[in-house]
Amino acid sequence: MLGLAVISCTDYPKLETTVPYKVVKGTIVLDTPAREPGQQSALGMTAEPIETVRIGLVGLGGRGYSALDRLTYVEGVQIKAICDIYPEKLKRGNEYLASRNLPAAAEYSGEEGYKALCERDDIDLVYICTSWLAHVPVSLYALEHGKHVACEVPSMLNVKDCWDIINTSEKTRKHFMMLENCCYDFFELTTLNMAQKGLFGEVYHVEGAYIHNLNPFWEGYQDNWRLDYNSKFRGDNYPTHGVGPICQVLNIHRGDKMNYLVAMDTKPLMGAAKAKENMGIDYFADGDHTVSLIRTELGHQIEVHHNVYAPRPYSRMHQLTGTQGFANKYPASQLAFAPDFEDFVSREKFDSLMVQYKHPVTAEYEVKAREVGGHGGMDYIMDCRLIYCLRNGLPLDMDVYDAAEWCCISELSRISIEAGSMPVQVPDFTRGDWNKVQGVHHAMVTGPNNP
Amino acid sequence: MLGLAVISCTDYPKLETTVPYKVVKGTIVLDTPAREPGQQSALGMTAEPIETVRIGLVGLGGRGYSALDRLTYVEGVQIKAICDIYPEKLKRGNEYLASRNLPAAAEYSGEEGYKALCERDDIDLVYICTSWLAHVPVSLYALEHGKHVACEVPSMLNVKDCWDIINTSEKTRKHFMMLENCCYDFFELTTLNMAQKGLFGEVYHVEGAYIHNLNPFWEGYQDNWRLDYNSKFRGDNYPTHGVGPICQVLNIHRGDKMNYLVAMDTKPLMGAAKAKENMGIDYFADGDHTVSLIRTELGHQIEVHHNVYAPRPYSRMHQLTGTQGFANKYPASQLAFAPDFEDFVSREKFDSLMVQYKHPVTAEYEVKAREVGGHGGMDYIMDCRLIYCLRNGLPLDMDVYDAAEWCCISELSRISIEAGSMPVQVPDFTRGDWNKVQGVHHAMVTGPNNP
Repeated sequence: MLGLAVISCTDYPKLETTVPYKVVKGTIVLDTPAREPGQQSALGMTAEPIETVRIGLVGLGGRGYSALDRLTYVEGVQIKAICDIYPEKLKRGNEYLASRNLPAAAEYSGEEGYKALCERDDIDLVYICTSWLAHVPVSLYALEHGKHVACEVPSMLNVKDCWDIINTSEKTRKHFMMLENCCYDFFELTTLNMAQKGLFGEVYHVEGAYIHNLNPFWEGYQDNWRLDYNSKFRGDNYPTHGVGPICQVLNIHRGDKMNYLVAMDTKPLMGAAKAKENMGIDYFADGDHTVSLIRTELGHQIEVHHNVYAPRPYSRMHQLTGTQGFANKYPASQLAFAPDFEDFVSREKFDSLMVQYKHPVTAEYEVKAREVGGHGGMDYIMDCRLIYCLRNGLPLDMDVYDAAEWCCISELSRISIEAGSMPVQVPDFTRGDWNKVQGVHHAMVTGPNNP
Repeated sequence: MLGLAVISCTDYPKLETTVPYKVVKGTIVLDTPAREPGQQSALGMTAEPIETVRIGLVGLGGRGYSALDRLTYVEGVQIKAICDIYPEKLKRGNEYLASRNLPAAAEYSGEEGYKALCERDDIDLVYICTSWLAHVPVSLYALEHGKHVACEVPSMLNVKDCWDIINTSEKTRKHFMMLENCCYDFFELTTLNMAQKGLFGEVYHVEGAYIHNLNPFWEGYQDNWRLDYNSKFRGDNYPTHGVGPICQVLNIHRGDKMNYLVAMDTKPLMGAAKAKENMGIDYFADGDHTVSLIRTELGHQIEVHHNVYAPRPYSRMHQLTGTQGFANKYPASQLAFAPDFEDFVSREKFDSLMVQYKHPVTAEYEVKAREVGGHGGMDYIMDCRLIYCLRNGLPLDMDVYDAAEWCCISELSRISIEAGSMPVQVPDFTRGDWNKVQGVHHAMVTGPNNP
């Protein structure tokens, strides 16, 4: 209807982007690199089953140490090697393995210790829990050395990172999974199951958030690395917890795709004050509150919030609005359905629906998950599913395109904000294949998802 | 299709807008008309005190009839004339006045009955409760005939309407107040008072919403006028309940101003289905869920939602995020403050804060308001304040610029959406005076706001 033309970029702000862009019809469009010869789509990719998954764990800070702990409870796993910049963290890791009567892991330390770890020939999976800036270099090195990779969030920090990881995974045929634990939380998995069974009708508006005042935690990030990162980058620097579960409900790259994004932030306030206090710096890029809106090919809508500064209760919003029902988590988990939509269902009804629509993945692992813990169990369920799929040669629950779609919001939101909230096209990381698979599946050796 | 001027702008979407626009650095900028000779700012405008405010009430449907009822309880008011297209509604109105032992009001009916009403010389205030499309013609006619005007929401349907009303009010020196009742709700006024006393620190992110499934109500709008309107216009067609109270907290045009807006909607689903069912039409413009984001001059952020179709509980979100505290209404009214921000304050603490920070306006009217009713009392408080200020020659709580700022979101969101979520500059309806008054005040004859 609008009949538009390509406009020269000279009229626009000079934007810093990690891949080249042009402006088309008032929308910023980043270039999509062509597939190199030898690459092919990783959609639905499987690998040879691995009886015992031998793991090299890179990064043994807070998050890595808890991963080490959890992984020792997962069936079919062996921790072969551990790596951290700081040798004392390796000692603590091996002490823990010893306390569990498990064999010692080979130790790698220093800035480039991960390389020797990745070069070993007795490792199947490199599991990465480093600080953000190391995620991509370690992931690429691991993939290039024939390892599957599981990497903490956010796995990619910008669009170039996304293409680098995708191209490498497509070329090496090795799995890349982002460790987006929130996709395994109980309410999220149950409502995904409800959505797939049609309880909400057509789900058209979804909201996710990472609203978590990190004031008590900033100093826990070695040398203020997280605050330092936020001081340099505007935009939603931590989108994946919010968008992962809602993108699964919308079947992103499995029947729908993100088309374009607009974002807006506020000025920096408490973040800037904290950075001044901790690091003595005067410039702080990240606005305290950032909102991104994404419209999909099917005319659905994704809203994502980021705020790690506000003195308010935690919200990892998970909201689904559909033509027949509604789900909302934070400040409370609640459900409502037509025709009695005026009120949320009673606590009794809620509890019974949570049991009735329990996701098969939750059902399989929940008892042990609640014992092992890790954010209430979801971390352990995530690990179990990763290892289960690798052991059985199944496609992983979350693929490299999920990781890219969820992570690219960081740079795209920054670009939009820096361009005065101009719309930015979301790259189709599947390069045309977004409609070839219908719906999100959690593959099982037997059962309806893997007949 | 909309009957608006199509304005060509090289290389950009051909947008239908009600005033001419150009595109500047990727932002759609609507022209600001110059003030005509004889006009001057209506900021802080006062008028001669009126001992008894003689009212002509136009529109006696559901909303107008309840206004008639409420106004009979307001001190210093006389209902001089009533008007409706349908004579039988006038009969009902006068029967009600008789039942309250009040003098009969003159009756005006038919499509143009309002003109004769406005031409009377014994009316001070025209109070307008018609359907949306009549708001502006009746308002303009009343202003031009020397009457103050109070008009239901949304008072203006587009940016041209906003300028027309502003220019006429500035020229005639007659008040124009939009009847935005939500600005008088208890939680909203109390949190405004808290914000003004600094409890939230710097409030930088605010959210408002009108999420109300109108499925049980569509047929109550004579000849489906509201559904018909939504079938023709995309965008947030009903923004004012959501934005009014949060704009007051942000001191919009009283120290801050809206700079630009981006909006995104979903495809039409349940709205389109209802229109097909009720009116047999196949085209429906309004997407089921619309989100608008607005950035202000001070780097604060306003988020507004519109959804009148979803089967979910009502939400007229009123959320304030500040550097020192947080307020949220819907699904529950809650408060949190630094340093104990991790939890909402207890119910006991909440209740005591609600008393401690009760707004003077609430304190003045709440007992009678709860008796008279009207959305729990807020409608009556609004009426009382309007009449009080007119009787005392004080500036009204909400001026013509508030009305324009809150209403213009309808057309600006439509434009942004139709241009693929391009940013649209929000007109400065004060034409440069947005920073001349500091803070929202509710004028009182005596007291701190009017010393």
